[in-house]
Amino acid sequence: MTKAVLLLECPDRKGLVAAIMNFLVAEYDANILHAGQHQDAELGRFFMRVEFECEDHLLHERVFEQRFTRIADEYRMRWQLAESHRRLRVCLFVSQHLHCLADLLQRHKAGELECEIALVIGNHPDGEALTNFYGIPFYTLPVRGNKAAVEEEQQRLLREHRVDLVVLARYMQILSSEFVEQWPARIINVHHSFLPAFIGSKPYHAAFARGVKLIGATSHYVTADLDEGPIIDQDVTRVTQGDTIPDLIRKGRDLERVVLSRAVRWHLEHRILHYDNKTVIFD
Amino acid sequence: MTKAVLLLECPDRKGLVAAIMNFLVAEYDANILHAGQHQDAELGRFFMRVEFECEDHLLHERVFEQRFTRIADEYRMRWQLAESHRRLRVCLFVSQHLHCLADLLQRHKAGELECEIALVIGNHPDGEALTNFYGIPFYTLPVRGNKAAVEEEQQRLLREHRVDLVVLARYMQILSSEFVEQWPARIINVHHSFLPAFIGSKPYHAAFARGVKLIGATSHYVTADLDEGPIIDQDVTRVTQGDTIPDLIRKGRDLERVVLSRAVRWHLEHRILHYDNKTVIFD
Amino acid sequence: MTKAVLLLECPDRKGLVAAIMNFLVAEYDANILHAGQHQDAELGRFFMRVEFECEDHLLHERVFEQRFTRIADEYRMRWQLAESHRRLRVCLFVSQHLHCLADLLQRHKAGELECEIALVIGNHPDGEALTNFYGIPFYTLPVRGNKAAVEEEQQRLLREHRVDLVVLARYMQILSSEFVEQWPARIINVHHSFLPAFIGSKPYHAAFARGVKLIGATSHYVTADLDEGPIIDQDVTRVTQGDTIPDLIRKGRDLERVVLSRAVRWHLEHRILHYDNKTVIFD
Amino acid sequence: MTKAVLLLECPDRKGLVAAIMNFLVAEYDANILHAGQHQDAELGRFFMRVEFECEDHLLHERVFEQRFTRIADEYRMRWQLAESHRRLRVCLFVSQHLHCLADLLQRHKAGELECEIALVIGNHPDGEALTNFYGIPFYTLPVRGNKAAVEEEQQRLLREHRVDLVVLARYMQILSSEFVEQWPARIINVHHSFLPAFIGSKPYHAAFARGVKLIGATSHYVTADLDEGPIIDQDVTRVTQGDTIPDLIRKGRDLERVVLSRAVRWHLEHRILHYDNKTVIFD
Repeated sequence: MTKAVLLLECPDRKGLVAAIMNFLVAEYDANILHAGQHQDAELGRFFMRVEFECEDHLLHERVFEQRFTRIADEYRMRWQLAESHRRLRVCLFVSQHLHCLADLLQRHKAGELECEIALVIGNHPDGEALTNFYGIPFYTLPVRGNKAAVEEEQQRLLREHRVDLVVLARYMQILSSEFVEQWPARIINVHHSFLPAFIGSKPYHAAFARGVKLIGATSHYVTADLDEGPIIDQDVTRVTQGDTIPDLIRKGRDLERVVLSRAVRWHLEHRILHYDNKTVIFD
Repeated sequence: MTKAVLLLECPDRKGLVAAIMNFLVAEYDANILHAGQHQDAELGRFFMRVEFECEDHLLHERVFEQRFTRIADEYRMRWQLAESHRRLRVCLFVSQHLHCLADLLQRHKAGELECEIALVIGNHPDGEALTNFYGIPFYTLPVRGNKAAVEEEQQRLLREHRVDLVVLARYMQILSSEFVEQWPARIINVHHSFLPAFIGSKPYHAAFARGVKLIGATSHYVTADLDEGPIIDQDVTRVTQGDTIPDLIRKGRDLERVVLSRAVRWHLEHRILHYDNKTVIFD
Repeated sequence: MTKAVLLLECPDRKGLVAAIMNFLVAEYDANILHAGQHQDAELGRFFMRVEFECEDHLLHERVFEQRFTRIADEYRMRWQLAESHRRLRVCLFVSQHLHCLADLLQRHKAGELECEIALVIGNHPDGEALTNFYGIPFYTLPVRGNKAAVEEEQQRLLREHRVDLVVLARYMQILSSEFVEQWPARIINVHHSFLPAFIGSKPYHAAFARGVKLIGATSHYVTADLDEGPIIDQDVTRVTQGDTIPDLIRKGRDLERVVLSRAVRWHLEHRILHYDNKTVIFD
Repeated sequence: MTKAVLLLECPDRKGLVAAIMNFLVAEYDANILHAGQHQDAELGRFFMRVEFECEDHLLHERVFEQRFTRIADEYRMRWQLAESHRRLRVCLFVSQHLHCLADLLQRHKAGELECEIALVIGNHPDGEALTNFYGIPFYTLPVRGNKAAVEEEQQRLLREHRVDLVVLARYMQILSSEFVEQWPARIINVHHSFLPAFIGSKPYHAAFARGVKLIGATSHYVTADLDEGPIIDQDVTRVTQGDTIPDLIRKGRDLERVVLSRAVRWHLEHRILHYDNKTVIFD
C-alpha cells in the first residue's frame, strides 16, 4: 500500500467534499486515513487535506493528474498530490548561532522529520563540524558585499541538490527579493519575536526596551517583504524584570527551536496551505 | 434557512464521508458550513460533526430520521441531529463558591452561551440573589442526611423545567450513582485539579503538599466513578514557593472558570462526542 | 499588630538592604513577612518591597516619615508606605462591554481585591443595573462632543469619592492627556492585543488580518501616549484558521479579564513599581 | 573581582537579613548583585540566596567559613557558599533516546550551562558518537542482571571524575536506593509526565488511555522513592484526540528537553534549595 496526501483549495461549492471522496474511493479504492477541511466564509473559499492509502500500482502522479483534472477543473482547484514515499529534499541555511541547526539535525536523526537534509549552507563555517558529524555536506559561502554572486552560487547548489524546501535556521543575511520569488512558500524562516511586534533586527533588545512581560518567536514563509510573510507558528514565554537581554536571548532560543521545527515538520507532512498572506494548518 | 449539526460515530468504512455528504446535498440541498472528522485507527472507529444549513421546511427531525435511517443503519451509526434554533435548557448546581456561577451567568447574558438557563439549584442560598438578578429562578435544597429525598426533588425540578444539561458549577455535594446514571454525558463538572492528579477533596491542599510547579483544573462529564469521567478540557497555571494555599485557590478559580465555561459552550454547540471514557472535541 | 508595605526605589549602593532592615527592626521591632528586591545593573538602580508587621501604635504614617527620612535622604529614595488597613478607593470606568466590570465586581465581592469600589462611571448606562446589584453607585456620563465638560465632571466625582485608582474596564473613550497627567501611574487600562502589536482600535480585526497564531491582551498604566504606557501584565491564547473575528473577540475576553484583574490586584497590594516606562512586579 | 553565591536556610527570626547583609558588607565589602528570599510562614523557616562580588583575595572558602560560622551558628543555618569560578562537574546518564543528551551537549557548547560535563555513562552505546563529537568521554556500562556491579563501577567513575552532579537524561534504568542515598539532591531526573499523575513506566501510554487534554514533563531530584522526589520544574502542552501515542511521545520530548535543561541550569547556578520534599527556586 502507498500513502499520499492531497492538498487543495478552491471556491466553496455544494457537493465538493462528496465529489472528492467519491473520486478517491471509486478510482483508487482509497482508505481515508485523515481528512481535514476549512472554509473561509468571508472569502467563499474551501481548503482540504486528505491523507489516504491505496494499492501501490494505482498511484502514479501522472495518472492521478489525468484522472483528477476533470474534478479539479470543474471546481477550479489549486491542488497538489504528495506521495509519502517521496521525501522532500531540504537545505538548511545557518550563520553563527547553531541552536536551531543542532535541533533540526537531531530531530531528523531521531526520525521526527521525514525528509532528506541534502545540504547545509552557512555564511560562516561554524556549523560545519556538527553538520558533517551527521554525514551531511556543508558549504561555506561568506557574504561580504558580494550578495548577488553568493545567491547565484546558493541557487546553483539548490538546483544541483534538487532541493524542495529551504529552511533559514537563524541565517542572519537578508535574501534578495529575486531569490525569494523563485521559492514561493518554499522558504521557512524563524523570527525571534512575536510578530508583528518587533519587526527587524535586534527584537530581543526592542522587547527589553518596551518592558513586555512575554517574549515570542515566529516561524513564517519568506516573502519579498521582510518579516511580513504568512505566519506558520508562534509561541511565547514569560519574562520578568529580572531577565536581562542575555536572558531573553536564552529563553527565546527555546521558542525558536520549537516554532521552527514545528513549521518544518508541518511543511514536510503537507499540512500547510497558504492564501491571502495567511496559513491554514491541518492537524 | 435553518442551521443544524449532525454528530455521528460508527465503525470506520470506505465511502462513509461521501455517503453522508451525498445524502445532505441530495436530500437537503445543504450548504456545509463546517465539517470535522476523527478516526481512531486502533479501535477502527469514525467520528464526524457536520454543521450545515438548508431550507427551513426541509428539516423536521422526524423526517430527517426517516430519511437518514437507511444510511445510519447501513453504517451502524450512533448519531444525533441538533437544530440550531432549538436551544438546550440548562440547570446549574451551585454551593457557596460563586465564581463559576457568576461567570456562566455573565457569559450567558453576553450571548456567549447559546442556551436557556432554566434554573439554578443550590444546597446553600448564597447564589440566590445573583441568579435572580439575571431573572432566573433559584431553588435552595439543603443536603443534610437526606440526600435521597433531595435528589428526588432535584430530578423533579429537572423534569419540570425540561432540562437537557446539568452543570455542576462548584457544587460540593457528590451525586449518587443512581442520579448520575439518568444523565449520561449530560452532567458536566469542574474538578479543581489537573486530573488524574489529586483526585478527591482538597486538591489544592494536596498540590501544595506535593510541591508541584503547575496547578490545574479539569472539566469532565460525570460518571458513577467520581473524578473518573471523560475529560472535556484542562488548563494549568504556574505556581511558585511563594504561593500559599489561598493563592493556589485564587489562581485555580481562574482556571475553573475557563475550563468549565469552555466545556459548557462546546456541549451546547454539539462539539463533543464521547466514547471509551474519552471525548472527541470538534473545533 | 498592623501590617504595612514599604515600596522604594533609589540608586544602588552598598549597605542599602542592611540599612533598611536594621531600621525596621530597630525602630519598629518589625516582623518581615516578605521582602523582594530588584536591581537594574545597567541603570544602577535598586527597587525593594518589604511587607512587615509591627505593633499598632508604632505605625503612624507621619511618624514613620519623620524617622525614615534620614535613611531616605541618605540613599536618595523615592518611597511610599502603605498600611494594610487603609484600603484604596477605586473607580471603574466602563462602556458597553461588561465582562471586565462583572469580573471585577465578582472578584471584589469574593474578597479577592482588597479595596473599596467607590463608584463606577459609564459613558453608557449598560453597566448600571449590575453595579447597583453590588450596592455601588453608578454615574452615566455620555460623551458626545463634550469631552472637556465630561472629564471635568469625572474629575469632580473622583475627588468627591476620594479615589486612589482609576480602572478602565473596557472604557472605549480616550482620556485627554490633561486628565491622564493628573493620575500618574494611577490609571490602569486593558488593551485587547499583545502590545506593542496592534496598537490602536480594532486590534482583533488587525490580528485576524495578519493571520497570527496567538492573540493577546495587555494591562498597563495609562500615560499621555495611547497604548504606550508601562506594561503591567500580558497573556496570550492560541487561535487557528477556524477562528473568526467574533471567536477572537470571545477568546480575547478571557485574556482581558485575567490581565486586568491581576494588574488591579497587584496595584492594590502595592506590588508594582514603575520606572523608565516599565514596571517591576514583586510577587 | 570574584563572584559567589550564598545559599542558606534557617528558622525565621528578626534581624536575619540585616545580619547577613551587614556581614557581607562589613567583612567582604561585597557588592550585592542579586538577593532573593522566601519565608514559609507555616513552618517558620527562612530561605535566602545572595549573589555578590568582592575582591579576589578575600574569598577563600575556608576563611569564609570561619568568619560566617558565628552568624550561621547563632541563626542555626544550613548554608553553602559557591564561588562562580568553580564550575561544577557533571555526569550525564543516558540510554537509547538521545534528545535530552543532544540538547544538553549543545546548550553546554553554546555556553548556556556553566559546568564541566566530565563524562557520559550509557547502558547502551547509542550516545557515544555524539558525546565524543563534543570531546567528552563516554562509558558504556550495560545493565543485564548485574546492577550492583554496574552501580559500583558507576560510582567509581563518578569519584574518579570528581563529579558534583548526576543528570539522568532519559536513563531508563532504576538506580538502587543505596546509590541514590549517596547523592542527596545531586541527581536530577526527568520524568515524562506531569507528576504526580502517571507515576511509573509508560506515562504517555497511560495519559493516552485516560484521555487527558494536556501532557506534561517533570524534572526532579531523585530520592529512594521513585518519581516522588522534590519537583524542580514542570511544563505541559496541549494534545487532542488526533494525537496518537507516538505524537504524545514526540510532543513530550520538547517538554522533557526544556524542563530538564532548566533544572540543570538552576542547580548549576545555585538557585535551588530543597526542604520538606519541595524545592525553592530563586530566579
